[in-house]
Amino acid sequence: MESKSEQNEWSSGVWAHLTAVRQQSPLVQCITNFVSMDLVANTLLSAGASPAMVHSVVEIPDFTPHIHALCVNVGTLTPDWLPSMKAAAELASQLRKPWVLDPAAVSCSGFRLKACLELIELKPTVIKGNGSEIIALSSASRGQTKGADSSHESTDAIEAAKSLAMSSGAVVAVSGAVDIVTDGKQVIGVHNGTKMMQQITATGCSLAGLIVAFLAIDSSRVLEATVSAMAVFGIAGELGEAMANGPASLRMHLIDCLYGLDETTVLKRVNVTRLG
Amino acid sequence: MESKSEQNEWSSGVWAHLTAVRQQSPLVQCITNFVSMDLVANTLLSAGASPAMVHSVVEIPDFTPHIHALCVNVGTLTPDWLPSMKAAAELASQLRKPWVLDPAAVSCSGFRLKACLELIELKPTVIKGNGSEIIALSSASRGQTKGADSSHESTDAIEAAKSLAMSSGAVVAVSGAVDIVTDGKQVIGVHNGTKMMQQITATGCSLAGLIVAFLAIDSSRVLEATVSAMAVFGIAGELGEAMANGPASLRMHLIDCLYGLDETTVLKRVNVTRLG
Amino acid sequence: MESKSEQNEWSSGVWAHLTAVRQQSPLVQCITNFVSMDLVANTLLSAGASPAMVHSVVEIPDFTPHIHALCVNVGTLTPDWLPSMKAAAELASQLRKPWVLDPAAVSCSGFRLKACLELIELKPTVIKGNGSEIIALSSASRGQTKGADSSHESTDAIEAAKSLAMSSGAVVAVSGAVDIVTDGKQVIGVHNGTKMMQQITATGCSLAGLIVAFLAIDSSRVLEATVSAMAVFGIAGELGEAMANGPASLRMHLIDCLYGLDETTVLKRVNVTRLG
Repeated sequence: MESKSEQNEWSSGVWAHLTAVRQQSPLVQCITNFVSMDLVANTLLSAGASPAMVHSVVEIPDFTPHIHALCVNVGTLTPDWLPSMKAAAELASQLRKPWVLDPAAVSCSGFRLKACLELIELKPTVIKGNGSEIIALSSASRGQTKGADSSHESTDAIEAAKSLAMSSGAVVAVSGAVDIVTDGKQVIGVHNGTKMMQQITATGCSLAGLIVAFLAIDSSRVLEATVSAMAVFGIAGELGEAMANGPASLRMHLIDCLYGLDETTVLKRVNVTRLG
Repeated sequence: MESKSEQNEWSSGVWAHLTAVRQQSPLVQCITNFVSMDLVANTLLSAGASPAMVHSVVEIPDFTPHIHALCVNVGTLTPDWLPSMKAAAELASQLRKPWVLDPAAVSCSGFRLKACLELIELKPTVIKGNGSEIIALSSASRGQTKGADSSHESTDAIEAAKSLAMSSGAVVAVSGAVDIVTDGKQVIGVHNGTKMMQQITATGCSLAGLIVAFLAIDSSRVLEATVSAMAVFGIAGELGEAMANGPASLRMHLIDCLYGLDETTVLKRVNVTRLG
Repeated sequence: MESKSEQNEWSSGVWAHLTAVRQQSPLVQCITNFVSMDLVANTLLSAGASPAMVHSVVEIPDFTPHIHALCVNVGTLTPDWLPSMKAAAELASQLRKPWVLDPAAVSCSGFRLKACLELIELKPTVIKGNGSEIIALSSASRGQTKGADSSHESTDAIEAAKSLAMSSGAVVAVSGAVDIVTDGKQVIGVHNGTKMMQQITATGCSLAGLIVAFLAIDSSRVLEATVSAMAVFGIAGELGEAMANGPASLRMHLIDCLYGLDETTVLKRVNVTRLG
């Protein structure tokens, strides 16, 4: 059982992170998919960050040096977008800016899997996926070709996440009924969030964007910043669902709640535990 | 006048189709336009289907064999997207997976009209458009070049729809004040829906996506599955409008209502008639 | 102090413009960024206009001659989109159709700044940006390379806007706490709107789209039509914020309010002053 003081520590850390995002309004570059651009941008704005959906390879040398952190999401990947993603990721890594890889639907093609493995070579700070995506990536990173099974629950993905974290050097975040965050040694569970959030497209991408904003303001504590972002997004979803009649109103209330989230609510609702 | 037993048959068919979509959660690949990706995905999710917005030509050989059905929408067509659409459509036809063509704004250019005619050669299961689009396609299929007049009501388009259905082998669905579905012989009218739905961008595209999901779970009864999808979408719009203050809240309530639609409401509200 | 009769003149002008948009439903072509396509289209629909998100360079010769006005927004510019923007802008100028340039994030790269300067050569009717964007463009138009500082308030941008208007021949609109519209001589302030609108992505792009619709129905009075569009959008935002719990519900209510805006409300709320 989690000690009360440790739970309090997580809670106050989450609130400190959210406050810092609101105060510093980090500039977050997103190279994300077409489906999620709108919701990712609105998620970041409602959290207090400054999103910039800049994806042209010709703009990266000028723009990426000015950002605080980067999000790369392969959800609607085509070959012409990959050079931009690589250029931005490489530059971010060189300049020691944190960046997150969201390997959305990584198993849908050999092309996409290969692209994600190449992006992992560029040293993402965090890899954020669902259970199936993390299992597929972890297997492929070990040279295995077993396909992903989308029925994997995130808790089943713990070993895959730890393995991927060890081999890649990234913190790995797995969204699911219980969100998992691991650096390969520690395993943290985030129990916030609701099932209906999965009925809204682009919530996973938006969570990845939010993690980027939190990394931007605490890049030395990657595991903790990632946990904080997942807890904040989950709490906004819980509050939103209490007001919602279905997924579309949940989507609206989630963003409103993220915007209005206050200290009392955060401290009361953060539900984070050590799983290993 | 429609017999009561025939109306009951349509109603119970609509409910059976919706239930099957929810239970089977078919995987629906959408190659659609930039404007509609978000709403199409959320419409499919709220109906219980699994949308996948995969459009890269390099991913189609790996991915399309795993889908249950395909949606192709030319709303923001550029020459570089057409090969993907053709490759996916051709593969879907080969593998006997149903696919829907939405010839959005087909008359806006010679390029787009030609592209749609080429796609029709690949044997769509259903062609879904508004009256103007269907009239333009039907004329062009007969070698006529008369431009479309956007003032055509869907009921005026019946003859064009029948002709296009006969020449293409597709079931043709025409959205409008009364939705029309025809296989070239039978003509069915779907009287559900509200006028304000036309004030929301991408509702037509979302309806096309929904038809795909319904075809996925009953591909042997194309006419009936198409009617069911149109009735369900229309009913969700009616329920949504009763709660809405304008098009943006209608959009939200429509998705929520689609998600929550129950048997009693479906059986009571389905309004389908034989027109010929 | 503004005379009451002058204020009344602005108010009745705004209402006359909105009424004309609703009655004439102008066809507005938008070549805009991926993030904003959905909201721009819904803004135009809710105002009574007909949006068409047609951006392929191969479609412009067929399509652009039929439009009433054009919107060009560089928010997610890549080199392959620029020829379309130029072709459409050039054709619009040739055919004396009004067009608006939204130089979104113009300072994010040398490529984007150069593209905007080239587009300005094609004689936009209106250039709409925030203070930083207008200052950056104005400096660059004078051959200066000083970067934009995003902390500039729109009122600080008056001189830059006047200078850009004089050099380009366009009316320049600057969104901010007080919106500014100038033809280089007259300077008009629009005091409608709320701060929270900046927490929603694509509101600036949507305002640009709305200006296009208003130009379409009164192309001979560019300054006045631009002021009207900004006042209408601002009023919709004020009404929306009164009903909102955060940015996502504001976004919904804004569109609903734009759709339902009536004469009494417009006449009462328009807040326009001469600043110079």
